Amino acid sequence: MSGIEIAVSTVIFALRHDTSTDRTSLWMPLVRRVREPYEGSWALPGGPVREDEDLSDTARRTLSETTALSPTYLEQLYTFGHVARAPQPVPGPRVISVVYWALVRPEEAERSIEDENVAWRAADDPPALAFDHSTIVEYALWRLRTKMEYSRIAQAFLGETFTLAQLRQVYEVVLQRTLDPANFRRQVEASGAVEPTGDYLVGGRHRPPKLYRHREASDLADNGPLTRL
Amino acid sequence: MSGIEIAVSTVIFALRHDTSTDRTSLWMPLVRRVREPYEGSWALPGGPVREDEDLSDTARRTLSETTALSPTYLEQLYTFGHVARAPQPVPGPRVISVVYWALVRPEEAERSIEDENVAWRAADDPPALAFDHSTIVEYALWRLRTKMEYSRIAQAFLGETFTLAQLRQVYEVVLQRTLDPANFRRQVEASGAVEPTGDYLVGGRHRPPKLYRHREASDLADNGPLTRL
Repeated sequence: MSGIEIAVSTVIFALRHDTSTDRTSLWMPLVRRVREPYEGSWALPGGPVREDEDLSDTARRTLSETTALSPTYLEQLYTFGHVARAPQPVPGPRVISVVYWALVRPEEAERSIEDENVAWRAADDPPALAFDHSTIVEYALWRLRTKMEYSRIAQAFLGETFTLAQLRQVYEVVLQRTLDPANFRRQVEASGAVEPTGDYLVGGRHRPPKLYRHREASDLADNGPLTRL
Repeated sequence: MSGIEIAVSTVIFALRHDTSTDRTSLWMPLVRRVREPYEGSWALPGGPVREDEDLSDTARRTLSETTALSPTYLEQLYTFGHVARAPQPVPGPRVISVVYWALVRPEEAERSIEDENVAWRAADDPPALAFDHSTIVEYALWRLRTKMEYSRIAQAFLGETFTLAQLRQVYEVVLQRTLDPANFRRQVEASGAVEPTGDYLVGGRHRPPKLYRHREASDLADNGPLTRL
């Protein structure tokens, strides 16, 4: 038996609209550590893998216990296992963390707990985090931005139906740049990633925008052969 | 201390030319298990993580010990941690495997050991493997094919310089379909992924083909913030 423990941590991203600044940005929930090491510091939700538990089940259980979130998009991201994972040496056994990431829709994020030990913070300007969790968040942001360029992952932030302006906003917030609406429309329509529902966004506008939905029935978190397991 | 052990396994892919059939295909080295469970079965190279060892170092050490390979392209692929990972229940503690994959160039593959306990086999038609290693190989093949569509990963199978015909052959072998040479040339030139060296392939041909090299100085296994660690 080796002296290495295995844990799961999860990075959760959601878009949040701040009504005071009228700005939408990428946010994530953090949990305050209630024991040493790093007692009182903010960290990613997670915990040790139980002997009878699949890795994704550990992710779901610890997310549910700490934040009450049960995200539809949950995917394994990367396993962090450097011998010295924390800026300061940590007492106790070495821990290897299998990191998952979850992208949640606005209505899912609203159901999250927020109290003195759970807080949502801006993902691109987080507080100092325990262990190597700041590196994990930086890596997750990089993966999200990279993956948005070649996959349909942006749709995971939206509900069943959405306008092209809403989809463009996801790209603009995550990539942190403004996109030309006409170019964006052409690219999305050419990609075939979404299809019109035939309905329009309800509202008092003169020309209500078209609603779209995800084109493919398949899971947005496409893991090929693993999805079929 | 949990009753879970952590190990690393590695999928290695290389292109091999079979002179008897004049066919090039994707091959991988397998090692024969010399102890229970699955004694005598073929499996991926790997072994337990030592307490003082980073995960990628376990991959490099176990590859070197079993196959004498030290690949330049080595990247973490996925962590397999289902509670029941093997078709048959396995005695002993539960094992979670962090799987790496390595893509090796022909001249690297030629330096590999081959003996009664190490054999290269066709990746798309492997023998039955121990544990869930058949699933792992299937997943690695799917990732390789998917990633070839949007990255420069194909270049990892080639040396420092190569012709466009050699690069096209990598795509054809991995994707298992024939590609139009003129279309392929246009797409590669438009992508900017390679650049001409100014030299030509040495040989007795009337019009020797141009040699190309990787465009970017960066590692082909781009892990963003992790590469800089």
